[in-house]
Amino acid sequence: MLVGKIKDKVAIIGTGVTKFGEIWEKDAEDLLVEAVYEAVKEANVDLKKDVEAVWVGTQYHFTGMSGAIFSDPLKFFGKPVTRVENFCASGMDAIRNAAYAVAAGMYDIVIACGVEKILDYGGRGLPLTGLELHPVFGMPSPPAMFALCANRAFKVWGWTKEDLARVAVKNHYNGARHPKAHFRREITVEAALKAPIIAYPLGLYDCCAMSDGAAAVILTRPEIAKQYVGDNYATIKAIGMAVETLEPWYRPYESFLSFPANVKAAEAAYKEAGVTDPLKDLDFGIVHDCFTITELINYQDMKLCKPGEAASLIREGVTAINGEFPINPDGGLKCFGHPIGATGVRMTVELTRQVLGRAEGLQVKNAEAGFAHNLGGAYTVATVTIIGRP
Amino acid sequence: MLVGKIKDKVAIIGTGVTKFGEIWEKDAEDLLVEAVYEAVKEANVDLKKDVEAVWVGTQYHFTGMSGAIFSDPLKFFGKPVTRVENFCASGMDAIRNAAYAVAAGMYDIVIACGVEKILDYGGRGLPLTGLELHPVFGMPSPPAMFALCANRAFKVWGWTKEDLARVAVKNHYNGARHPKAHFRREITVEAALKAPIIAYPLGLYDCCAMSDGAAAVILTRPEIAKQYVGDNYATIKAIGMAVETLEPWYRPYESFLSFPANVKAAEAAYKEAGVTDPLKDLDFGIVHDCFTITELINYQDMKLCKPGEAASLIREGVTAINGEFPINPDGGLKCFGHPIGATGVRMTVELTRQVLGRAEGLQVKNAEAGFAHNLGGAYTVATVTIIGRP
Repeated sequence: MLVGKIKDKVAIIGTGVTKFGEIWEKDAEDLLVEAVYEAVKEANVDLKKDVEAVWVGTQYHFTGMSGAIFSDPLKFFGKPVTRVENFCASGMDAIRNAAYAVAAGMYDIVIACGVEKILDYGGRGLPLTGLELHPVFGMPSPPAMFALCANRAFKVWGWTKEDLARVAVKNHYNGARHPKAHFRREITVEAALKAPIIAYPLGLYDCCAMSDGAAAVILTRPEIAKQYVGDNYATIKAIGMAVETLEPWYRPYESFLSFPANVKAAEAAYKEAGVTDPLKDLDFGIVHDCFTITELINYQDMKLCKPGEAASLIREGVTAINGEFPINPDGGLKCFGHPIGATGVRMTVELTRQVLGRAEGLQVKNAEAGFAHNLGGAYTVATVTIIGRP
Repeated sequence: MLVGKIKDKVAIIGTGVTKFGEIWEKDAEDLLVEAVYEAVKEANVDLKKDVEAVWVGTQYHFTGMSGAIFSDPLKFFGKPVTRVENFCASGMDAIRNAAYAVAAGMYDIVIACGVEKILDYGGRGLPLTGLELHPVFGMPSPPAMFALCANRAFKVWGWTKEDLARVAVKNHYNGARHPKAHFRREITVEAALKAPIIAYPLGLYDCCAMSDGAAAVILTRPEIAKQYVGDNYATIKAIGMAVETLEPWYRPYESFLSFPANVKAAEAAYKEAGVTDPLKDLDFGIVHDCFTITELINYQDMKLCKPGEAASLIREGVTAINGEFPINPDGGLKCFGHPIGATGVRMTVELTRQVLGRAEGLQVKNAEAGFAHNLGGAYTVATVTIIGRP
């Protein structure tokens, strides 16, 4: 069984992202149009004339369903538009499917985008409306799901609430400097420790917010990229993805110290990209920090350190913006919030702009290649995208 | 702008489909497992060992969300599973995305499937819960949407309720002979004309039912197909897709006599497959007969005849099972009902089995190549898949 490679077969020539936040004065259509127009402009492509197909990631059915979520606001008619839903990995899976279609030679230029308009409807985390999972036991809320992991890590590895706070402080330091972030304010370890508890040990600053937002990328093949943007493009080195269960807590062997979907998605991506030691082969990363504990576990699952050592990485500043391997230089979900379908696409936008040396917030020094990582559901689905210069 | 081809790059080596109907004793997971196991058996592949990725089409969020809809019931963990939602074309778009990934060389063997469990939840047609479209005017129900077309066709072309009834009679004749159909009973023109009106002029027998069901296909590349199934495989000649608007009634130029998404999807598919005259180049078709009027308009959009002539085709028996160009030899949505995400996959299963000479119901004579067609939303999205022998 051989899984193939799209390494360097797909280029990103345009990126667009809206301000993330409580955007009461715009609806999903407005946000999508804004992000797509920015990407189209950056790529020097004509939406109607050049773009042949679209993939759009949204999770909530109230944000929009089917390809019409894109076609109607963009007046993009008569061509294929696919809606992809894969919990919090919806955006990155939309990019994955778009990339395969380009790599297959079906289309020259396509758009992958994501949008979510959550705050108008009060959506919170996973919309399981009507889904009946376990016949007796309930479904924990997302903070409760990840609190299980934090408590376990405290017990097994001696991590503390201070370690979690350090993640929030780092990400708020970075996000405070990003013009598109939802929360643009630095915080202190003390503030994080004093914040109200959401699900012990996770407090207010350990949890990302729900926000509205949209993001878009434009994909093509490298040989076509040049004629639109010269050398100003990045290439996809790998996209790894894995799905596990929606009810991990009923697996007797669930450790709560690692997310199997993460591990398998990272392994697939590293293999495809030829990465053997991410700390050496890559320059930085963007991880799905829906909760501070998630960021720490992600370090380990992404093989940036051994199990139990993630707290040392944050304590020693390895993942700070000027550290050896910056993580979430944009401020992460902590500062951007999490408009679900948009998040994975926004991460890919940030990753691309970092690699091209034109990050909007803090620029990682010598950023030639990095990864972005989505984790969705009850640690159910993970996607890892590696992007670098051609 | 060149759109590429996957013609003959992707083979279908396994097909599975459940009985469609009011299946109270099974849930979505049961149905999916049943369809997938049948397909896996037919393809002689090992689900865990050989299958590398999955695409699943579901429309309703209560049927299941994310890749977990497949992974949990099938215990298919650690690999990519994508959920595709594209209204009533969800199933065929799942196949389209799976086919591109195979054509790109990313995977050797993948599954595309669809499932919907509707009756437990009382889902009816398009689930627009929370979606606010036009700020003042409401959204018509699906029968009302298509009644607009029927009334217009009656006025412009002189079609009659008898013409609609003939479609229902033909499809019930075929479906009565298919062991997996929901409704397995012949009807008469008189019975159809006397049936209660749902939305004038559409009566009970002009509308397809909501049903539960699942279907699956297994895709690979032709060079791999042989080692699993010898010569017992079909190849995809083309997949065309187009998305229009979710609110066609607000377009001043909407004719209600043709669905632009149909026309563009058919043109794309015919071009990719090299079909210039479908009546000559293909042997039969499976169209999305959500309503009898839809089947007639589909004939025209698929270029089986000129505008206005579809009623002649049904009157003259051209599309009957022993006619020149049988349409819906399986009984169509009229007899199978419409478990939304499953429908396009079921059609592709029927198409493949016809082409391989092993249809479960009525076998089309000399069926070497044919098409299957999905239409979804408010005439919003259409997909046309052409399948033939290698």
